Amino acid sequence: MKEYIAKRFQHRSAGLTLDTEALHRYNDVIDLSIGDTDFTTDRRIIDAAYHDACNGYTHYGDPKGDPELIEAIRQAWKEDFQQDISADEVLVTTSSCMGMSQTLLSILNPGDEVIVFGPYFADYKNQIILAGGTLVEVETYEEQMYRPDEAAVRKAITPRTRAMIVNTPTNPTGAAYDRETLQMLANIAQEKDLLVLADEIYTRYLYDGEFVPMRTLPGMADRTVTLNSFSKNFMMTGWRIGYIIAHPDLISVFKHVNDALTYSAPAISQRAAIKALSIRDAIADEYISKYRARVYKVAEAIEDISYLTIFKPRGTFYAFPGISKTGMDDKTFCNYLLEKAHIMVSPGCVFGKAGNGHFRIACTTSEEKITEAMERLKKLEKDF
Amino acid sequence: MKEYIAKRFQHRSAGLTLDTEALHRYNDVIDLSIGDTDFTTDRRIIDAAYHDACNGYTHYGDPKGDPELIEAIRQAWKEDFQQDISADEVLVTTSSCMGMSQTLLSILNPGDEVIVFGPYFADYKNQIILAGGTLVEVETYEEQMYRPDEAAVRKAITPRTRAMIVNTPTNPTGAAYDRETLQMLANIAQEKDLLVLADEIYTRYLYDGEFVPMRTLPGMADRTVTLNSFSKNFMMTGWRIGYIIAHPDLISVFKHVNDALTYSAPAISQRAAIKALSIRDAIADEYISKYRARVYKVAEAIEDISYLTIFKPRGTFYAFPGISKTGMDDKTFCNYLLEKAHIMVSPGCVFGKAGNGHFRIACTTSEEKITEAMERLKKLEKDF
Repeated sequence: MKEYIAKRFQHRSAGLTLDTEALHRYNDVIDLSIGDTDFTTDRRIIDAAYHDACNGYTHYGDPKGDPELIEAIRQAWKEDFQQDISADEVLVTTSSCMGMSQTLLSILNPGDEVIVFGPYFADYKNQIILAGGTLVEVETYEEQMYRPDEAAVRKAITPRTRAMIVNTPTNPTGAAYDRETLQMLANIAQEKDLLVLADEIYTRYLYDGEFVPMRTLPGMADRTVTLNSFSKNFMMTGWRIGYIIAHPDLISVFKHVNDALTYSAPAISQRAAIKALSIRDAIADEYISKYRARVYKVAEAIEDISYLTIFKPRGTFYAFPGISKTGMDDKTFCNYLLEKAHIMVSPGCVFGKAGNGHFRIACTTSEEKITEAMERLKKLEKDF
Repeated sequence: MKEYIAKRFQHRSAGLTLDTEALHRYNDVIDLSIGDTDFTTDRRIIDAAYHDACNGYTHYGDPKGDPELIEAIRQAWKEDFQQDISADEVLVTTSSCMGMSQTLLSILNPGDEVIVFGPYFADYKNQIILAGGTLVEVETYEEQMYRPDEAAVRKAITPRTRAMIVNTPTNPTGAAYDRETLQMLANIAQEKDLLVLADEIYTRYLYDGEFVPMRTLPGMADRTVTLNSFSKNFMMTGWRIGYIIAHPDLISVFKHVNDALTYSAPAISQRAAIKALSIRDAIADEYISKYRARVYKVAEAIEDISYLTIFKPRGTFYAFPGISKTGMDDKTFCNYLLEKAHIMVSPGCVFGKAGNGHFRIACTTSEEKITEAMERLKKLEKDF
């Protein structure tokens, strides 16, 4: 059937998908590969959505988003980051994944380039290709705490560069940029007239320091497309709900593209999101604090494992150990880990060139299982 | 901000959106412009979704779709249309709108052409442009019951033609193709090696005759992409849930594109859809029968209005009267209708060239209001 498929997808690469076959090969596999919260959505959120659905929120609604949700987003933004945003700067999206694709589809001409800092969230590549663009990876390194190097960023910019994607806290490394780094990137964006696509979906997963949204930096509000989501911040991955904050002229074209995609975001999920925002501190206290404990535990355990290196995560629920001391490449190492220790993780190479020689641990299973997994890793020391 | 927007969207045309300003200009406006069911989703469906959400269905789930939903789709298809489909021929989508865009993004190279029969659902145009293609309209006419003319279809095909979109029952005309027409289109598709994108979202709104899915015609299963949705068939527009049935090789690329868009369809909506399929006959009896009554009532009333013409709808909840006798163009007429009779409808021109000289009535308000609207239309006879 290949002749029916668009040329750009005839040689598509497989994304980051779970090897479910491997998962069932042994009965004691500990799966640390899933980028999904292990908690069910808080009952208060589900109840609110149910109540509103029964009361008629089962229709398309405003394609820009439920006006009450847009108002709640504006209020929360003001309270959390002391910045006013207007209603026409907000578009509710069917997940932030969708938000990123809508943005790229809206801004890229064929062959335009987007700068991405590797290791990066694997989907960016497919999203940029879908929009007809080219991903330009600027590598960052464990030894520099995954801070982008200014000279490397400048060198990567060409006349075709339209935007850079800035994801902080960062999947898969757990890094987070400090204000100085953000300002360096902001300065370059202004100087080179680039948009910044700020993927901030781990807003509430910053364990060390205060979260600084890109659009709050001086002069950045109009050239930043802020992408956020309820998936991670509120344990709501299955609801598919997020939002974009951007200049009204950009929102207008994003909405136009949205009309051709999902038209409107799921109405029930939008009602759930309104409730979620109203109890956001309680959600962080009850759930996200657990991820911090797990991530720190993993980092500590790995510091004590002789054949691994580790950058101590500053946010997210991921850790990204290095395996250079093992002499293996990361795919070989991940297979070895599955066969020898019955642990499933993601090989670093799926997160770009800079991911090579690493693997990603998602701390999305119980502390007990994580402890067990760390013990199994420790026992492998004898192999190296 | 124009310089930040992709060239193809810099001169975008406004789609079919509601003039909310006009809606509030008078306090007795009857709005017949909305393509959304006026019924809230059946309580049995909401309850099932709530129950499952509380039990943990708040996660991404399988990006291909909830396996139980895929199984339910296969079973219902077998029962309703006596055709076996395999699990790898099904992809759950975040609405059928999304399904169509995924399909077009997956199959079109820049400049490829897609044949669409006008009057057509306005979003097709934006969806084809989004995917880099060109819409080629083959006009159909009220006098021919909106049946495509074989010679006209053949004439429209060029070496760049990749697919034709076949929407039956049809938005906005209420037409429905008989088996002979479908077979004529199927023969052309086979002869010219085209895909058929069968938009069948009004499956259960065919009031006259038996619904024949395109993929059940001889030799058509492998070249048909069937697009379906829970929005209209189950009064579930706000849930954003639909599905694609197609050859596994096509499903594979649609899924790849989906990974970059919404990744997975809303989990709670998928649980709702499972329940919906299990009570599909009850839903049709209770709700869709009301639309039939309304549509027939509108058609009868309009037959008795001297300045209008009407094709009696065979399906959907739309009627598409002609205004050639008024001497007005359709935008002028729609404004006149709003000012003189406080009735809001959609001008035919938004549905393609073939829509000129018509307007669309959506019977998505109460029978009482519809009756009132028809009385107001009748009273305008004196103006012509």
